[in-house]
Amino acid sequence: MKTNDNISVYALGGLNEIGKNMYAIEYGDDIVLIDCGNKFPDENYLGIDLIIPDFAYLLENKEKVRALIVTHGHEDHIGGIPYFLKTVNVPVYATSFTLGLIEMKLKEHRYLRESNLHEINASTVFTIGKMNIHFFKVNHSIPDCLGVVFDTPEGTIVHTGDFKFDLTPAASNERSEIHKMAEIGNKGVLLLLSESTNAERKGFTPSEQIVEENLESAFLKAERKVIVSTFASNISRVQQVVNASEKTNRKLALLGRSMVNVVKVAMDRGYLSVPENMLIEAKEINELPPEMVTILCTGSQGESLAALSRLSTGNFRDASILPDDMVILAAGPIPGNEKKITSIVDNLFQLGAQVIYGPGSSSGMHVSGHGYQEDLKLMLTLMKPTYFIPIHGEYRMLHLHQQLAESVGVERENTFIINNGDVVDIDQSTARCTRKIPAGSTYVDGVDVGDMEFVLRDRRQISEDGMLMIILPMSKKDGKMLTDPEITSRGFIDNQFSELRIGMNKVILETIRGLYEENRNSRNVIKRQIKKTVGQYIYKRTRKDPMIIPIVIEI
Amino acid sequence: MKTNDNISVYALGGLNEIGKNMYAIEYGDDIVLIDCGNKFPDENYLGIDLIIPDFAYLLENKEKVRALIVTHGHEDHIGGIPYFLKTVNVPVYATSFTLGLIEMKLKEHRYLRESNLHEINASTVFTIGKMNIHFFKVNHSIPDCLGVVFDTPEGTIVHTGDFKFDLTPAASNERSEIHKMAEIGNKGVLLLLSESTNAERKGFTPSEQIVEENLESAFLKAERKVIVSTFASNISRVQQVVNASEKTNRKLALLGRSMVNVVKVAMDRGYLSVPENMLIEAKEINELPPEMVTILCTGSQGESLAALSRLSTGNFRDASILPDDMVILAAGPIPGNEKKITSIVDNLFQLGAQVIYGPGSSSGMHVSGHGYQEDLKLMLTLMKPTYFIPIHGEYRMLHLHQQLAESVGVERENTFIINNGDVVDIDQSTARCTRKIPAGSTYVDGVDVGDMEFVLRDRRQISEDGMLMIILPMSKKDGKMLTDPEITSRGFIDNQFSELRIGMNKVILETIRGLYEENRNSRNVIKRQIKKTVGQYIYKRTRKDPMIIPIVIEI
Repeated sequence: MKTNDNISVYALGGLNEIGKNMYAIEYGDDIVLIDCGNKFPDENYLGIDLIIPDFAYLLENKEKVRALIVTHGHEDHIGGIPYFLKTVNVPVYATSFTLGLIEMKLKEHRYLRESNLHEINASTVFTIGKMNIHFFKVNHSIPDCLGVVFDTPEGTIVHTGDFKFDLTPAASNERSEIHKMAEIGNKGVLLLLSESTNAERKGFTPSEQIVEENLESAFLKAERKVIVSTFASNISRVQQVVNASEKTNRKLALLGRSMVNVVKVAMDRGYLSVPENMLIEAKEINELPPEMVTILCTGSQGESLAALSRLSTGNFRDASILPDDMVILAAGPIPGNEKKITSIVDNLFQLGAQVIYGPGSSSGMHVSGHGYQEDLKLMLTLMKPTYFIPIHGEYRMLHLHQQLAESVGVERENTFIINNGDVVDIDQSTARCTRKIPAGSTYVDGVDVGDMEFVLRDRRQISEDGMLMIILPMSKKDGKMLTDPEITSRGFIDNQFSELRIGMNKVILETIRGLYEENRNSRNVIKRQIKKTVGQYIYKRTRKDPMIIPIVIEI
Repeated sequence: MKTNDNISVYALGGLNEIGKNMYAIEYGDDIVLIDCGNKFPDENYLGIDLIIPDFAYLLENKEKVRALIVTHGHEDHIGGIPYFLKTVNVPVYATSFTLGLIEMKLKEHRYLRESNLHEINASTVFTIGKMNIHFFKVNHSIPDCLGVVFDTPEGTIVHTGDFKFDLTPAASNERSEIHKMAEIGNKGVLLLLSESTNAERKGFTPSEQIVEENLESAFLKAERKVIVSTFASNISRVQQVVNASEKTNRKLALLGRSMVNVVKVAMDRGYLSVPENMLIEAKEINELPPEMVTILCTGSQGESLAALSRLSTGNFRDASILPDDMVILAAGPIPGNEKKITSIVDNLFQLGAQVIYGPGSSSGMHVSGHGYQEDLKLMLTLMKPTYFIPIHGEYRMLHLHQQLAESVGVERENTFIINNGDVVDIDQSTARCTRKIPAGSTYVDGVDVGDMEFVLRDRRQISEDGMLMIILPMSKKDGKMLTDPEITSRGFIDNQFSELRIGMNKVILETIRGLYEENRNSRNVIKRQIKKTVGQYIYKRTRKDPMIIPIVIEI
């Protein structure tokens, strides 16, 4: 049995991946969780809607779980919350804007009333068990982001959240609390968990100020409508678009459900200031001269059902992009989305639009929300941790972050590059990683939530070479075939199916006859053998390996 | 009927896409083709092996097709050749290295003997009909690349092939024939077809010389094995690795079938010079001290079965990557391959290797083979064409290439941004695009070659939500059900299938009973109605839309 006089730190998601962040600090009989995100499935996860952490360990220890602290409102930090609360319903702590987004999500899941939400801010202090918990404000690409500090008898643990250092953020109330960080570091940090997303990029992250200037000069040049696409949650960017629209006497239409909803949350909670009468409805766009209109829309990642994609193909009812309209992609592509985005750019150019786009910050219309190497070194320098766990990144990012830590004085053997489920047990004098808890992935597919192992395996096989169903109607009495087998295929072959069918029919009947003669005619043996013989027959003739499904019907 | 006293120019592939390049110059009764490439399917083309041009128009006009000229040996220019020659077997003209690669390909297809291959070089001149055809040498990322010139009574047509201007290429015999280009331009060019791949990138393409210097200094620093991954066909890069290995007293092992084969072609034909005794077999790697070994391997695009991927997961029999080995990715990612490549980088770091990698030319170990904006402007300036068709690119690249052309004096209305199949009819005084020929895509899937419309549609639907087979054994006599329906699913749902099955069974029996009562009990009506009622039942309970396949078995 493990003793609990040390602190255990582990991730249930977020290590060796981008997404589904969930970290835990366990001390004595108390578990405090940080974030509960989702990850969007790539093309290998056929048909899967979402990937979330596996909550099995937390469910098993649910009487210990005291709180979920949420650092900020991005999907990779909040997207798993409804599923988690339905499994283990604990109090949730987050800032006002983050809570606004969590509430939206819980409403969709009809679980808001059951939830127990607590608003905090960067000055909040509370205690759970022997942990005194407080916060510091960080810059990122969404309002009101927190780093989290756990003061314990063993020492202080700091979790940075997602951050960069932007000395000139879009809003002055979004400044990092750099003095507070210095103070925390000065008092001594036992363990730092710091995010690693941009550990591959040299230098400092450019400031939001650059985007502000570029947006404004683009708006000044624009002679017709300006269409800006960005993440709805990037309220700084939204504020910049509002400001540029005000300077150029434009009204602003919001297109896309999440843009409308998130802007409403931001305005209601005082994170966004929009001049009176600036906002117009989509259907008012065509009533105004084009040089008086800005459109702010979702779809910057090329999502096929979002507003930008529909605008680019002329499938948006109330608005259309016309020659010499200016389209600004004010968001960087998430790795994997590049091709979907460039195909939208192709369509926009075909409509005659001027398009300002480009990877990373090359267009001048986007800067990353994650600190580059120098930002990461600054955080490490401020915190001066004894021990360090790089979090929130794929392996190479964690690895490079370790090298950065070493370069500013964190001893290499004091850095733990761990995987989801690896537990670092730490006290004031030692840290070691010798044990694991279960921490896999859970897939959400419609109402289905689970590991989907067989479902995915089958989808993958069928998606490659299709499938063949072979129905064998047999007499219940003597096991004789009542008719020829019925063979049906889907997604298998374009040509020659009728010739193949004749051949397969022969192979099947021969296989069954052979098995009868050998007296090996149980249903399972027949099915197994038909899979084999038909599979070989098909592969030889088509070089394809469809899923073969023999079904015996006894009548 | 169309008259043939003008020249018709069109693409069967390569426009509004990257890949399957195939262009045609048709004059009177003569069609000359330029290139015949393939395209690699992205994740939307489930299970498809290759995409090639649709040869229907050429088959219909096969008595007119005189020649296929191949500008260089990349897959997107030669990958369709075996399929094309099996359809329309015409003489193929290419330089020695390109022919070497084409021969390899034809051998695999067992079609080399039937083919009619002609070696040319940059000085070759020949005549087809009223077209006098000659060439000029261009720089690219594979040896011996050509631009093609068609002198006709109507004027001169120039096709650039893929190119950049590299004033210091890796080998001096790879210099562009810039004086020849100037001369061609001076005599007057009626129409230029120029490639557009890098029309989005500002400046000039960096020179290969930069890579040479960086490779050499990395080799000098390396204390153990150096593993370099690049395209086998990038013989300049291979030569640079040979040179750096020579300078640092290393033996060279080639891993990966295409690396071995292509290097052999290059050595046999005099494109690559390797010191005697430098090459070693894979199994000799472990017999040498690590600081005496270089490995050159395939897999720079993250291909899961190629050498680099297998090395990165410890699955290569004769070689392994050990701590402090240096791995250099000396190739840029083709868009769409980024995630596969970074996952290999993750694995390499986990093995303890030093990895030099990065997007584009940021690592210093790769430069693009395609000209940037200034290269494209230089070509346009040299050729001074009256008419211009930007080729080889997605729409935004063609569009930006048009803007570049305008900036150096090509009139906007003289540029044709066209699609595959659009025909530009041109004579000495006019050009217009008013007609189309068929020019779609053909899919290769095992031995199956065709449009695969239904196959792909079915694979896509099943890959999303799986499928449900419902077998209805009915009496041939009276159409009554002989047993309960047999329901089987694949890739559909992880949980609750047994409850669903009970519900579906009920829905099916009710549906059939209802149809009998209404006397609407033909097989087709029953199947259609069951698809509908079961589909609704399932969607309501699972939010999934599997393919439903009702099969009536009459006994």
